[in-house]
Amino acid sequence: MKRIKIADLLSQPKVGERYLVKGWVRSFRNDRFIQLNDGSTINNLQAVVEAANFDEAILKKITTAASVGLIGVLTESQGSGQAVELQVSEIEIIGEANPDEVQKTVMQPKKHSLEYLREQAHLRFRTNLFGAVFRVRHAVSYAIHQFFNDRGFYYIHTPIITGSDAEGAGEMFRVTNLDAKNPPLNEDGSVNFSEDFFGKAVNLTVSGQLEGELAALALGQIYTFGPTFRAENSNTSRHLAEFWMIEPEVAFNDIHDNMDLAENMLKYICEYVMKNCADDLKFLNEREAQEQQSKPQNERNELGLIERLQFVTTNDFKRITYTEAIDVLMNSNHYKKKKFKYDVNWGTDLQSEHERYLVEKEFKRPVIITDYPASFKAFYMRANDGCEPGKETVAAMDILFPGIGEMVGGSQREERLEVLKKKCADFGIHEEELWWYLDTRRFGSVPHAGFGLGFERMVMFVTGMTNIRDVIPFPRTPQNAEF
Amino acid sequence: MKRIKIADLLSQPKVGERYLVKGWVRSFRNDRFIQLNDGSTINNLQAVVEAANFDEAILKKITTAASVGLIGVLTESQGSGQAVELQVSEIEIIGEANPDEVQKTVMQPKKHSLEYLREQAHLRFRTNLFGAVFRVRHAVSYAIHQFFNDRGFYYIHTPIITGSDAEGAGEMFRVTNLDAKNPPLNEDGSVNFSEDFFGKAVNLTVSGQLEGELAALALGQIYTFGPTFRAENSNTSRHLAEFWMIEPEVAFNDIHDNMDLAENMLKYICEYVMKNCADDLKFLNEREAQEQQSKPQNERNELGLIERLQFVTTNDFKRITYTEAIDVLMNSNHYKKKKFKYDVNWGTDLQSEHERYLVEKEFKRPVIITDYPASFKAFYMRANDGCEPGKETVAAMDILFPGIGEMVGGSQREERLEVLKKKCADFGIHEEELWWYLDTRRFGSVPHAGFGLGFERMVMFVTGMTNIRDVIPFPRTPQNAEF
Repeated sequence: MKRIKIADLLSQPKVGERYLVKGWVRSFRNDRFIQLNDGSTINNLQAVVEAANFDEAILKKITTAASVGLIGVLTESQGSGQAVELQVSEIEIIGEANPDEVQKTVMQPKKHSLEYLREQAHLRFRTNLFGAVFRVRHAVSYAIHQFFNDRGFYYIHTPIITGSDAEGAGEMFRVTNLDAKNPPLNEDGSVNFSEDFFGKAVNLTVSGQLEGELAALALGQIYTFGPTFRAENSNTSRHLAEFWMIEPEVAFNDIHDNMDLAENMLKYICEYVMKNCADDLKFLNEREAQEQQSKPQNERNELGLIERLQFVTTNDFKRITYTEAIDVLMNSNHYKKKKFKYDVNWGTDLQSEHERYLVEKEFKRPVIITDYPASFKAFYMRANDGCEPGKETVAAMDILFPGIGEMVGGSQREERLEVLKKKCADFGIHEEELWWYLDTRRFGSVPHAGFGLGFERMVMFVTGMTNIRDVIPFPRTPQNAEF
Repeated sequence: MKRIKIADLLSQPKVGERYLVKGWVRSFRNDRFIQLNDGSTINNLQAVVEAANFDEAILKKITTAASVGLIGVLTESQGSGQAVELQVSEIEIIGEANPDEVQKTVMQPKKHSLEYLREQAHLRFRTNLFGAVFRVRHAVSYAIHQFFNDRGFYYIHTPIITGSDAEGAGEMFRVTNLDAKNPPLNEDGSVNFSEDFFGKAVNLTVSGQLEGELAALALGQIYTFGPTFRAENSNTSRHLAEFWMIEPEVAFNDIHDNMDLAENMLKYICEYVMKNCADDLKFLNEREAQEQQSKPQNERNELGLIERLQFVTTNDFKRITYTEAIDVLMNSNHYKKKKFKYDVNWGTDLQSEHERYLVEKEFKRPVIITDYPASFKAFYMRANDGCEPGKETVAAMDILFPGIGEMVGGSQREERLEVLKKKCADFGIHEEELWWYLDTRRFGSVPHAGFGLGFERMVMFVTGMTNIRDVIPFPRTPQNAEF
């Protein structure tokens, strides 16, 4: 007899039909009601066992976390909480689970702290919460691929191991095969990386953008979706040493096209999840609502999780320049009452408190800030024309989300060879290191633009999880590379 | 005026309509015919320029590799080779390209060697061949995501940086932040990795399987699609130091379900590419046919590229056990005439020449070989029951493709805790290192199975490219991590 997945059974339940289901026991109540879950949906199937029909030895093995196969006829349920239930006629115990041992794990059905769940990241997949989070994470991935594929973008796999260190996005991890204790040395006493696997020092990528541009300037529209790395010793709820990033890049796009693309993509993801993850989202929505109740009134979200997603899909993002943002901040009562910890002035990057004020207090929606001062933005961002001397800006854009901060960072790229070469010089980047990047400006250069979406931050937004370690299966952070 | 992509224009050409197109000049013939490509399709748009209507200075800048914007009315083409052409009324030179410099690049429209194209991997995207290869590569990626999503699988991102070294799939790269020359040492003189970023020695993953199993044993059906690494000094046309792998894993599947899943997936990919990449495939098919003509008769493919894809989709894969394969080989005339370089005997792994014989001579189709001797397969593969002593086999499966060799390797996994623990001991793997993996066998263990698909090998098969470095944008191999 062929097994049916519980998601399929519950989506089109046929009362009177005989089914085989397999899964893990979430609970077995009154020697009668099994709650069975097989991972295909957050919803358990209720299976009803007539104790008199089975060996006591069998019934004893139906315990939380054990795996079983059940055959039975589907009937309408008398109880509340489910529409149908399985009247079990055959039981196969597939894998037992010692109740005393289960009690020491996160599979024990009770409330566990997120910290404790993280220590058992190998088992937290079996909880309602993390089942929901990782099903939604999948949906976000798929939505992204679908969005770009449907629009004629090509997925490009940019290299993970790279000898390029010009991007300057952050501290890098070294990848090596040299003897860790006694590396070969040059005559001057420095490490001789020419003997390393790749014949030179290499690192884990911090961004696929520069290579992505190469592809975009031939294929027209591309996106990357791959892991990126930061060797930064920051133990926060928003940073990982290893995280996934999506980086689209489009030839002939300017900064305005770029904003449209990013806003459309973010809305598409939210719509997709609402449409395809209704059950998981309902659970996550209720979970968050409960969590909120234990918080002081002024720390609670104004909108629930699903309301926030709806809000994103139905409202235009607020678009302002950095210069306008500085004005708004300096004219705010918050500023006048000296409530900001950090000062606000033109030429200094915005602090998290400033971004949060703009997004959460002033505009109450996602905000796109453009045209930042050139001084603290990357070398490849396009210099804006006609700036006042000393007030040079670049065609950068950051998209800020409530509760998350920076979700997307992007820009129009500098396509003018001479301007770009001067930028390299200003940033201390040797042209020889980036000969291949500069080549694209030598041969039919075109305006183009792109951005990076932090994938885990997007998953945080759509699941309502507030620690980035809880939206990736096995988080990598300082001092932690378990599993 | 809004730009239209050439793919969109050509798929529904409206004669008489006025269009704006932007792209790169592939050639400009007789001061009259521009072949314009924008990466959206392998097909160029022919644009016709009346020299008399334009400044000579403008016309001079229309050179190979330059980027231009053209406005004009679409007409039926008088010439052969295209159905429609654009009668140009406005020309914008977007980015020039010095013809003398272009001549030194792979963009010069003539036949270049694949080796030379690899040296200019940053520009080879702009050639017909690599445009086609990378559009098809995208299609293969998307087909894989669609196949699994449609069947209710969840995409899991397993870690790239890992402290686990039990998988034993190959040599690993170390990831570190310690001082390369003077690492901190322990009292006994060994390197003190507890001072490294993660507090211990870590590596780049060779496979996401073990972590994938953790997710599958909760969510039911998962797949990974991520980069994997081998620090092996092998300079062959089939190996990369960095490559992408797809690893599905399914709870409750046995080895037969596993074979069905893999065969269905491979057929799905071929069908998808034939349906969605017709133009690129036609080009690749003709290219291969031409390449074949320069080869001796006995080295030519019996079937053309598209015929091979059709063959895969319409024929069942041959399924035989390792023991049967050994019989077939030993009974072959090839063996009797001592034409194999390596001996054939039960208990030794098959060599590439044996696999090729089975696939290309004996069965002339993809072959799935199952039930290999346990001695040379991984510790996690399920031990078959009822084996003769000394002839122990495991429920492994390798899928062999003509011209490629191993495309897929997989197995049913050992779900019995005691058997698995004994296997660990036999393989010298400490249980403490894999406590999390063994935990899944302690709590409701279930039969399950999965496999790994080498993504680049699949792209080789569907594009007809014979060197793996030509199907990944920026190949990483010994002594080479350019771009």
